[in-house]
Amino acid sequence: MTKFNVIRGSITAPQGFRAAACFCDVKTLGTGKGSKKGQKRDLALIVSDVPAKAAGMFTTNQICAAPVKVCVEHLKNNTAQAVVVNSGNANACTGPQGMIDAREMAAATAQALGLAEANVMVGSTGRIGVHLPMQNIRTGIATTAEQLKSTQTAATHVAEAIMTSDTKPKQIAVEFKLSGKTVRLGGIAKGAGMIQPGMSPTGARPASAPQGLHATMLGYLTTDAKVSAANLKKFLREAVAQSFNCITVDGDMSTNDTVLLLANGIAGNSKLIAADLKIFQAALNHICLELAKMIVRDGEGITRVVTVRVTGAKSFADADAAARAVGNSALVKTSWCGGDPNWGRIIDALGYSPATVVEENVDIAYSTPGAKKKIYSLKKGRSARTSFETLCKAVEPKEFELHINLNLGKSETVLYATDLTEEYVDFNKGDITDLASLGG
Amino acid sequence: MTKFNVIRGSITAPQGFRAAACFCDVKTLGTGKGSKKGQKRDLALIVSDVPAKAAGMFTTNQICAAPVKVCVEHLKNNTAQAVVVNSGNANACTGPQGMIDAREMAAATAQALGLAEANVMVGSTGRIGVHLPMQNIRTGIATTAEQLKSTQTAATHVAEAIMTSDTKPKQIAVEFKLSGKTVRLGGIAKGAGMIQPGMSPTGARPASAPQGLHATMLGYLTTDAKVSAANLKKFLREAVAQSFNCITVDGDMSTNDTVLLLANGIAGNSKLIAADLKIFQAALNHICLELAKMIVRDGEGITRVVTVRVTGAKSFADADAAARAVGNSALVKTSWCGGDPNWGRIIDALGYSPATVVEENVDIAYSTPGAKKKIYSLKKGRSARTSFETLCKAVEPKEFELHINLNLGKSETVLYATDLTEEYVDFNKGDITDLASLGG
Repeated sequence: MTKFNVIRGSITAPQGFRAAACFCDVKTLGTGKGSKKGQKRDLALIVSDVPAKAAGMFTTNQICAAPVKVCVEHLKNNTAQAVVVNSGNANACTGPQGMIDAREMAAATAQALGLAEANVMVGSTGRIGVHLPMQNIRTGIATTAEQLKSTQTAATHVAEAIMTSDTKPKQIAVEFKLSGKTVRLGGIAKGAGMIQPGMSPTGARPASAPQGLHATMLGYLTTDAKVSAANLKKFLREAVAQSFNCITVDGDMSTNDTVLLLANGIAGNSKLIAADLKIFQAALNHICLELAKMIVRDGEGITRVVTVRVTGAKSFADADAAARAVGNSALVKTSWCGGDPNWGRIIDALGYSPATVVEENVDIAYSTPGAKKKIYSLKKGRSARTSFETLCKAVEPKEFELHINLNLGKSETVLYATDLTEEYVDFNKGDITDLASLGG
Repeated sequence: MTKFNVIRGSITAPQGFRAAACFCDVKTLGTGKGSKKGQKRDLALIVSDVPAKAAGMFTTNQICAAPVKVCVEHLKNNTAQAVVVNSGNANACTGPQGMIDAREMAAATAQALGLAEANVMVGSTGRIGVHLPMQNIRTGIATTAEQLKSTQTAATHVAEAIMTSDTKPKQIAVEFKLSGKTVRLGGIAKGAGMIQPGMSPTGARPASAPQGLHATMLGYLTTDAKVSAANLKKFLREAVAQSFNCITVDGDMSTNDTVLLLANGIAGNSKLIAADLKIFQAALNHICLELAKMIVRDGEGITRVVTVRVTGAKSFADADAAARAVGNSALVKTSWCGGDPNWGRIIDALGYSPATVVEENVDIAYSTPGAKKKIYSLKKGRSARTSFETLCKAVEPKEFELHINLNLGKSETVLYATDLTEEYVDFNKGDITDLASLGG
């Protein structure tokens, strides 16, 4: 089925991409607070040797950060050659100065690399409402631009530089053939908290706002395939819909969520035919889903990952609403933390979701990833009389699948969710003595 | 303005109401587990000397417990004379047997007291999906029916008997004059977890499901005023809309939320004139709001109560959606727990809410309850440059007000919300060794 192979590496696996990252102290401005390792990288560049076709998906949060606005603007020509991104500061809610700063990040990168400013994409992640320390950013860009390499080490440095509360870098790459040419597709991502992305190509919300579409997640994808701008947009939209837009850690959609895909065409494949379109989409879907799952598995303080599979919904909107009600319910999430197979809380959340739900129709079951056998807790709204011990075992693994069949229609969806732990609360209640030193 | 006085007592303060409660071991069936005090009361009766006009408001959760269905049915004649309620078991998701059991609770109460079965209201709160131990319930009803008293002690016993994770009973009463007659209005309530009620008179959801309307909360209200059934319904609907339907602890709407108001007419006032309608509504609003606030203040594990006041919204639906997005955001709630005046998380939640929000228009400020002075953290989408220390002081009190002005219209709302603490997670992740002994 799948005609691609997972290979080592990420954004520098495809031909013609270079990367570098440095520490320029964006977050703590020399105080050293907040950085556990002292010199954690916080500014990165990803650069293509030639202008690449590019597509993006952006947060649909109405409060949208300056770097996102600059990306949407710069993507109008469907072309990008470089991405500059910092962690430690989101450059969100920073007003006109925030826009000036985001544009200056692009301009400084364009100047350092001799590129067109409109071909530079900008990303930021971190605290909201604080102006970027532009002197540090300028120095960081100049330093990083001189260190660009096509090595995997360089890619890892970038994957580390975009981390905020993430505990590990997230990377993947695949290889496949298009018209006889070997093509590669790689990606990196970050997440951890404020994670329930709902992205669209322009950041604009659908006329009817999707229910529950709510860390900053950043994803940067590169390929040396030759793909038209129109196909690239379509590929990315579908891939994001079944991956990054299907995850939740805490139900909070960020102001900065961004996924970018750059295709520089250096592999030299011919124009894509129908079979090629399928294989490219499958490869991209795989990359995006694996990165999305890495984000969920590294969610703040989490101890369990639950794949919520809703089937039998009257509509996709119903399936999505049902899955998000369950995956974001404080009571369901705390029961997952405790290893309690509490189906009462699950059906309660289904019942208050906007989805149409009929008690007498609802089936709830568990399985381990990859296994076919389902352990039912509820059949047609009634206890399946499975022993409590058996149900406890079903929800004990670090990862399990929750199957909810509403038995009302044919629509379905999948949501990758997490438990809610004391560690999440402890981490996010923060330490105001640390924050005070940063000026809020 | 207000022409009522708060007096001592609750449901037995009005003339002609008696109450009693007993321990019949509904929750642990003799295992003694789960009950901290061994013999915690878990079954209660509230009885009027004469048939009373009655109105109710019920959960709009599509998964609706049997006692709620029985109440809706029994309220068709707008008359009630007794309420029978148990804690420790919700009798929710219990199928046809659950309906049989709920009806038997009404029938046994009617028989013990010599009333019409249709005039008995039923309530249950506790674990979902477990059948009621009917032998215990029958014994409990028979015992309790012989102990009915019009004392405040009896009312307190009932307020205690309906508690689940509540740490204290919740009671209030007021006294006022209607056509020269002294009239009293009293109430009790319980809450603690699975708290974000959204109730309607029949439990039916509005055609367009209210955004975010989501422990079981129970509220029982009594008055000796003479009020028509039509007025009673109108009074209760308005009172609940500005109280119980405006609170959230964890954003989870229960299967059992119920508020009942019984008016037995014993005070002997004449038909209500316009001025009387106003005073009754004001008194009922006060009772409901005070009970609702008691629920929030006793929310599971909470350390702070935040009154979220949204103004300047384009519509009431927008104001409500904005307030609920903020009041239910895991990141906002954990920042409240930590005493962190993080406006970035607040504006982020506003931005992903279904409400229309324009970054450049948003004001965010704090005040202490009752004080007029507002401390601004954000003005027109920009930092108000208030010192971090000053903002920290504003969010330090156990109770504070958060003012959000969207500056887009004239609609407004208030939501009484809480922080999210490690204690909440610890309590709700539960102890599966305890649960196993209860058969799940």
